[in-house]
Amino acid sequence: MWHDTYLKAVLQPDYTYASEHLLPHLFDALTAHSLMLDGVGVTHAAEAARLLRDIRREPFPPYDPRVEDVFFTIDQKLAGLNPDAAGAMRTALSRNDLDMTIYRLSARLRLMRALSRLLTLRRTLLDFAEREIDTVIVAYTHHQPAQPTTLAHYLTAVENNLARDTGRMFEALSRVNLSPMGAVALGGTSFPIDRYRTAELLAFERPIENTYDAVSASDWQVEVASVITITSTTLSRVLHDMLFWASRGLLSLEDGLVQGSSVMPQKRNPVALEHARTKFSKAIGITQSVILSSHNVPFGDINDPGPDMQPPLSSMWQEFREGVELLTVSLSNPAINREKWLREAQLGESPVTELADAITRKTGCGFRAAHGRVKALLEQLHDQERAVDTLTLADLHGIGVELTTTELVSALNPAEFIARRTTLGGPAPSVMRGQLGEASARLRADLENHERLTHRFMASRAHLEGDGVQECKGLRV
Amino acid sequence: MWHDTYLKAVLQPDYTYASEHLLPHLFDALTAHSLMLDGVGVTHAAEAARLLRDIRREPFPPYDPRVEDVFFTIDQKLAGLNPDAAGAMRTALSRNDLDMTIYRLSARLRLMRALSRLLTLRRTLLDFAEREIDTVIVAYTHHQPAQPTTLAHYLTAVENNLARDTGRMFEALSRVNLSPMGAVALGGTSFPIDRYRTAELLAFERPIENTYDAVSASDWQVEVASVITITSTTLSRVLHDMLFWASRGLLSLEDGLVQGSSVMPQKRNPVALEHARTKFSKAIGITQSVILSSHNVPFGDINDPGPDMQPPLSSMWQEFREGVELLTVSLSNPAINREKWLREAQLGESPVTELADAITRKTGCGFRAAHGRVKALLEQLHDQERAVDTLTLADLHGIGVELTTTELVSALNPAEFIARRTTLGGPAPSVMRGQLGEASARLRADLENHERLTHRFMASRAHLEGDGVQECKGLRV
Amino acid sequence: MWHDTYLKAVLQPDYTYASEHLLPHLFDALTAHSLMLDGVGVTHAAEAARLLRDIRREPFPPYDPRVEDVFFTIDQKLAGLNPDAAGAMRTALSRNDLDMTIYRLSARLRLMRALSRLLTLRRTLLDFAEREIDTVIVAYTHHQPAQPTTLAHYLTAVENNLARDTGRMFEALSRVNLSPMGAVALGGTSFPIDRYRTAELLAFERPIENTYDAVSASDWQVEVASVITITSTTLSRVLHDMLFWASRGLLSLEDGLVQGSSVMPQKRNPVALEHARTKFSKAIGITQSVILSSHNVPFGDINDPGPDMQPPLSSMWQEFREGVELLTVSLSNPAINREKWLREAQLGESPVTELADAITRKTGCGFRAAHGRVKALLEQLHDQERAVDTLTLADLHGIGVELTTTELVSALNPAEFIARRTTLGGPAPSVMRGQLGEASARLRADLENHERLTHRFMASRAHLEGDGVQECKGLRV
Amino acid sequence: MWHDTYLKAVLQPDYTYASEHLLPHLFDALTAHSLMLDGVGVTHAAEAARLLRDIRREPFPPYDPRVEDVFFTIDQKLAGLNPDAAGAMRTALSRNDLDMTIYRLSARLRLMRALSRLLTLRRTLLDFAEREIDTVIVAYTHHQPAQPTTLAHYLTAVENNLARDTGRMFEALSRVNLSPMGAVALGGTSFPIDRYRTAELLAFERPIENTYDAVSASDWQVEVASVITITSTTLSRVLHDMLFWASRGLLSLEDGLVQGSSVMPQKRNPVALEHARTKFSKAIGITQSVILSSHNVPFGDINDPGPDMQPPLSSMWQEFREGVELLTVSLSNPAINREKWLREAQLGESPVTELADAITRKTGCGFRAAHGRVKALLEQLHDQERAVDTLTLADLHGIGVELTTTELVSALNPAEFIARRTTLGGPAPSVMRGQLGEASARLRADLENHERLTHRFMASRAHLEGDGVQECKGLRV
Repeated sequence: MWHDTYLKAVLQPDYTYASEHLLPHLFDALTAHSLMLDGVGVTHAAEAARLLRDIRREPFPPYDPRVEDVFFTIDQKLAGLNPDAAGAMRTALSRNDLDMTIYRLSARLRLMRALSRLLTLRRTLLDFAEREIDTVIVAYTHHQPAQPTTLAHYLTAVENNLARDTGRMFEALSRVNLSPMGAVALGGTSFPIDRYRTAELLAFERPIENTYDAVSASDWQVEVASVITITSTTLSRVLHDMLFWASRGLLSLEDGLVQGSSVMPQKRNPVALEHARTKFSKAIGITQSVILSSHNVPFGDINDPGPDMQPPLSSMWQEFREGVELLTVSLSNPAINREKWLREAQLGESPVTELADAITRKTGCGFRAAHGRVKALLEQLHDQERAVDTLTLADLHGIGVELTTTELVSALNPAEFIARRTTLGGPAPSVMRGQLGEASARLRADLENHERLTHRFMASRAHLEGDGVQECKGLRV
Repeated sequence: MWHDTYLKAVLQPDYTYASEHLLPHLFDALTAHSLMLDGVGVTHAAEAARLLRDIRREPFPPYDPRVEDVFFTIDQKLAGLNPDAAGAMRTALSRNDLDMTIYRLSARLRLMRALSRLLTLRRTLLDFAEREIDTVIVAYTHHQPAQPTTLAHYLTAVENNLARDTGRMFEALSRVNLSPMGAVALGGTSFPIDRYRTAELLAFERPIENTYDAVSASDWQVEVASVITITSTTLSRVLHDMLFWASRGLLSLEDGLVQGSSVMPQKRNPVALEHARTKFSKAIGITQSVILSSHNVPFGDINDPGPDMQPPLSSMWQEFREGVELLTVSLSNPAINREKWLREAQLGESPVTELADAITRKTGCGFRAAHGRVKALLEQLHDQERAVDTLTLADLHGIGVELTTTELVSALNPAEFIARRTTLGGPAPSVMRGQLGEASARLRADLENHERLTHRFMASRAHLEGDGVQECKGLRV
Repeated sequence: MWHDTYLKAVLQPDYTYASEHLLPHLFDALTAHSLMLDGVGVTHAAEAARLLRDIRREPFPPYDPRVEDVFFTIDQKLAGLNPDAAGAMRTALSRNDLDMTIYRLSARLRLMRALSRLLTLRRTLLDFAEREIDTVIVAYTHHQPAQPTTLAHYLTAVENNLARDTGRMFEALSRVNLSPMGAVALGGTSFPIDRYRTAELLAFERPIENTYDAVSASDWQVEVASVITITSTTLSRVLHDMLFWASRGLLSLEDGLVQGSSVMPQKRNPVALEHARTKFSKAIGITQSVILSSHNVPFGDINDPGPDMQPPLSSMWQEFREGVELLTVSLSNPAINREKWLREAQLGESPVTELADAITRKTGCGFRAAHGRVKALLEQLHDQERAVDTLTLADLHGIGVELTTTELVSALNPAEFIARRTTLGGPAPSVMRGQLGEASARLRADLENHERLTHRFMASRAHLEGDGVQECKGLRV
Repeated sequence: MWHDTYLKAVLQPDYTYASEHLLPHLFDALTAHSLMLDGVGVTHAAEAARLLRDIRREPFPPYDPRVEDVFFTIDQKLAGLNPDAAGAMRTALSRNDLDMTIYRLSARLRLMRALSRLLTLRRTLLDFAEREIDTVIVAYTHHQPAQPTTLAHYLTAVENNLARDTGRMFEALSRVNLSPMGAVALGGTSFPIDRYRTAELLAFERPIENTYDAVSASDWQVEVASVITITSTTLSRVLHDMLFWASRGLLSLEDGLVQGSSVMPQKRNPVALEHARTKFSKAIGITQSVILSSHNVPFGDINDPGPDMQPPLSSMWQEFREGVELLTVSLSNPAINREKWLREAQLGESPVTELADAITRKTGCGFRAAHGRVKALLEQLHDQERAVDTLTLADLHGIGVELTTTELVSALNPAEFIARRTTLGGPAPSVMRGQLGEASARLRADLENHERLTHRFMASRAHLEGDGVQECKGLRV
């Protein structure tokens, strides 16, 4: 019946993908629909729900070219057991609203899993930061040494960024978790169904108001792709820095995360970080497919952002999750070469901003003038091929600045540089401790929110699987 | 001093762009910073604020290769007027936090403008829908006629989608509208500044907690690009349908929005819609630049998502806004060929779902069986080269179904098809009216939120420009 | 030894992918390398080649976490059989040059397969065009009826486009088909190897000149992604038109390529075309991953465009190939509603360009004036609600134009419109026949080139597999 | 007449862009068309050509909302001077074929300019390489020190890559440089025009065979975008390395290419390289717009890849050119810290591959075993916290290897490591000199080809502008 090319390029892979990834959602949706129908008085619908719970426990048949897809596989199985139940289940139901429902349920689950990985990474970053509150590093701007700060300062900045990403994911979830059920083909139905009830049974927030919107919208899909892109770009930047540090021996991964070379005996490559980088590139790349599948196509029920986009979305989630996991294990316990980093801060010129600050405080002539003087002083040193740690009071006197030895030494000491930066959000250890406390509290709140939602979605699943009548009651409360 | 290539490829265009697009934000930020410094007791800072208000009223000088950028142009002007004031202003200030601040202020303004256009489009869609509650159209799925519905049903679906986009934009705004001021180069400062005060003066929500994050993060930029992509993909789908309708003479634009041909005398091309489509393609395309500028670069202060990305972002906002505007004027008063659309619904097979529904109700045998029977019936008709409107009771009897003439005629009447679809979110006019009421209320709330924010941002501007001391007091309340 | 996360996210999937897709290329490369080593006098190298031919015939072992990858699996197997042979094979060999070699061999194979599908589609288009030389269609510009032409004219335009894509693919092939072998880690080797010989054995064009380039370059990968994007965008445009025609009943697919609806009994959706569209969207989307994996990463041996990009590339080729196949079968024998199309041409205004042409010829006053007159005439008709086929000589007289009845009728006859367009490349059947002949000749030449290359690559494979000494000799000639 | 929104969002910016960028191409095309018409006997066409040459010398009028576009501006000007000439010029001419012609002429010019910049960069790289044939660097793989090689080896690899890009650009040019003229609206014309002649006058290779293809195809546009992407990704990788080297003080730019900081007095940021990186990111990003404008739109005359895509394409060319220029000036004369690089090679472990090679040669036991021994030896050294330069014959004896002191010292000497790598394409200075000679020859050939084409295109321009009748004759030869 089917053209062989169509069968091989479309029907069979669709069936395989759906069998492996979508069945629980499909059974949930059909069972919830049947329970709702029973609630509004459709005869045999209760029987449909009961039989669906049985069928889902059985092994699912492999692909058979005589049956169009997984939906019709269940439909025929049900009809074989009880034609009236099958007839009832098909009331006010289309693959259009059904498909959109299971794609949203799937996205919901994937989003919850991604969130879980992100929360773990945030915990790892904060734990790491807590250990490195006093670790001096040289921060680079424009690829040049800029100022001393602490490793904790950097790591907390990353965590703060990911806290915003967590917010984006929860917000995306609130727009994913809406019910298309009851939209049927696109115009709803002439049967008196209860869309709120189906939504409630599936732990959706609420039904999507407009039925045409329900089967047509792909905005939620582009949005989940976007939050993945937003987080992935930030993490690609963090990976740049990790690999830059690894290149210079400042950060080393544990043995289980490095690979050697078949030719160069000395090699210990930080490949976990490198693969994480590519995984984020791939995750971002896939979002392009998601965008293209919603570009210049009809606003209505079509295959593009529907079945055809589910395997790429699945790859996107997987690359993202694995990227986050690789980064998380890489940051769980890397060796940090604190001495080397401190030496770079001490021997280089990164602390001279503080010298200008000190001159400003001492002279009261404003930072502008102090900056100019220090700049001139550095040019002198360069001409004389001297390092900053050879600066003397005489040098300063030469540019019309009088500091005490203590002031000079203090100004060039990276640790004191840092300790003085007590502005809100600065690296001074005293300030960092407060920041870390707030970050931990925020993370705790996000974890609780995640747990609450997990419980709610699992209760819905348990009820629809028929394992727990209690949960069902719980759900209704 | 500068290499000629660098001057022409970087410095001069940067100056030009900043002069044309960023100066008000730059003056706002410098003035707010100076006022804050005055508040914490920095001498001459009040004078700096006063002079900045004067300087911003003067014409801004054209590019001069001896001055690096717009910041140093102002700095030197200020120093010429009062070196102490210039010295004060430079306290605890870097181009790093300053630039990120003005890019965020700029994004905030552009986002507010984009929101304004989107709200107008939503209003246009709802007004249009209110006029077309009874207009029968044939909805297509998979590029084939599917079911009759109303034009209002379609248009409201689009508006509902855009209401979610409005939510995304407001959420993005809450993450854009954070203050980097006081982060200085990256590590804050040893001067006792008040970051909350600067944030308040600039009408930011609050300071960005971590100073390293403040100068490094580009997540907000990828997010604004993402919301543009999300909305643009949806609108590209809507434009597909508009152009499809225009192709078939169902929708015609007014004269001022069509163009003719230099060869084909009959042409009236719906070019406003076509150009809107490309504008969305371009807006989405530019977001790719935004993503790439934050891909595999250091997490720290760099030029990529900084000055270099501002002109593309500006183009993105413009393409998006113009796309929305072209779509809005196209949908403000197009001619709708209601007769032709109704004829398509009456003569085509799109209403036969309802025939199956009617049979289901009459026989009580379930939709599954009814669907099968109608399908068989249609195959008969096709073999006999008959249209659906030639169906007789005898035909139905032939497949074992007994309907009355009234039932048959009613089942095939598109208007009755629609009137029966009274499910939540269905096209039945009675239901649509309620939906439109709710949509209008939601739009009103969004408009009020937009207005409230506009007022707040304008009050900040007025105060910093020095036009209204009252606003300043208002701001602090 | 390996961290569990690294093992699951990287090593195991890499092994699985390589086992399923890359082994023949890997054995080819190792065998060619060993044969070359034997040729330059490395002892035991001949034995290595012999044993590799044995090992490749055995079933390849499943993943074992104690062995790093497929290369070391073979290395250890070989060492188990003959340590000297294994030692020899490892001479002047790194996974760096080896990996790049097998990725290029794999790309070469995929490119040849893609070419094969493209050539079939071109054949299908030309065959289709030959059947439709006289089929009148209305060509649309800017989504409005423009001029009558023939279906053959449109289809040949598409084929001509794909002929250019074929050229691009052959050119890309010439840059893919270069040998990295002998570059070893990056700097070549101190052993006196023969890089030309290895290249020749693997049927590469030549060795890549610079060894650093050999292990670093990813330009060939971005290029193959680009040719896929170029072809896919064109085909997405063609699919737009096919689906537009299908929407209006002008083109219908055979039963094996359409799907129905679970709700709407009348549906016959042209889903083969719709899925083809998404497949091209996905293929283009994946190219974004390819670009990102070569963006802002070191120019040197890294994992990003290496092993990590092979699975996405594989998906890209598959989506592209299946998209081309679905389009090919859809265009092999679709039903064309010639009457409906002719009616549209006759009843609509698309032929009026020719009326202006006729007036130009008759009056000698230039096309500019004639265009203006016809435009005014059409406005009159619209005011009078008359169709173009009601035009009379009196109407023409009214605008100062005198044509004979024959001239008027002829000017408005779509078939004559077409027959007159005998410019180079125009739709007149006489001209089309010549065009089709030339297109067929060009296609034949491309097919021969493809065959020649196929033979060459298969001979190399046969020799390296050890199946045919003759082929080997053939190769050397 | 025009809707104000349409005028501001479309007509006015189109006019402005065309006035600034497209007029010479437009006049060329119209003049060539008129000359061709004269050749086939159209009266007044010679006069049209003569007047067009006059009009192009006059200042072009600013935008006037009463005239649709630049074409009609010229058309009306011509008609004002001589209505018959205007009438003649309009024969067999549409804005469809005309627009596609000028977009191709514009792309041809931009491609030639981009090629010119690329050829200069290649020259710069080869000159740089010639100076650094003996400069030892440590090549990194997977972000870790790998092997010593020379700076010349790296730079030549990059040049070789760009030589392939040059090939791609010339190939793209051959598909851009085809003439759509004479396709008129899409179906050609009933006037007996000579498409070969127009193509020849405009220095196109030949007319595009099929007229429908001529006005519809956008493959050439996606192709030029693709070659920009291919080259840009490679250069983004090179920039990664330049910035990595600059970070570590190995490479420093001249003063005119660095910028300082308003806060950190020590800063000398290699901003020319950083801005070059973003320019390539932006160039790649814009290609996404080009792809989207040809995605899921009709294959026929539309605005998307037409006028709407010209400004983004213009930006793409500019970003690309400026990126190449910034990279070129950065690499023209940077300071290289040769001592530091050599020290890294001497003190680090990068040369130990050669130790394994030496053991292989000495023992004859195969590289596999030697690699294992050296790896074990390094682990011993690490345990003892010893550097590689402390290795003794006793250490080697301990692992069962006997080398002489000379052999050991030689094996660990980076310069000898390099001198031994004389494989085709290896870094040994003797080999590099040959490679550089070949690269220079290839570059010379490309330059000659570029010059030849430049001459041809300029001769066409000169003839059409009316400056040189001789060139015209030359052209025909």
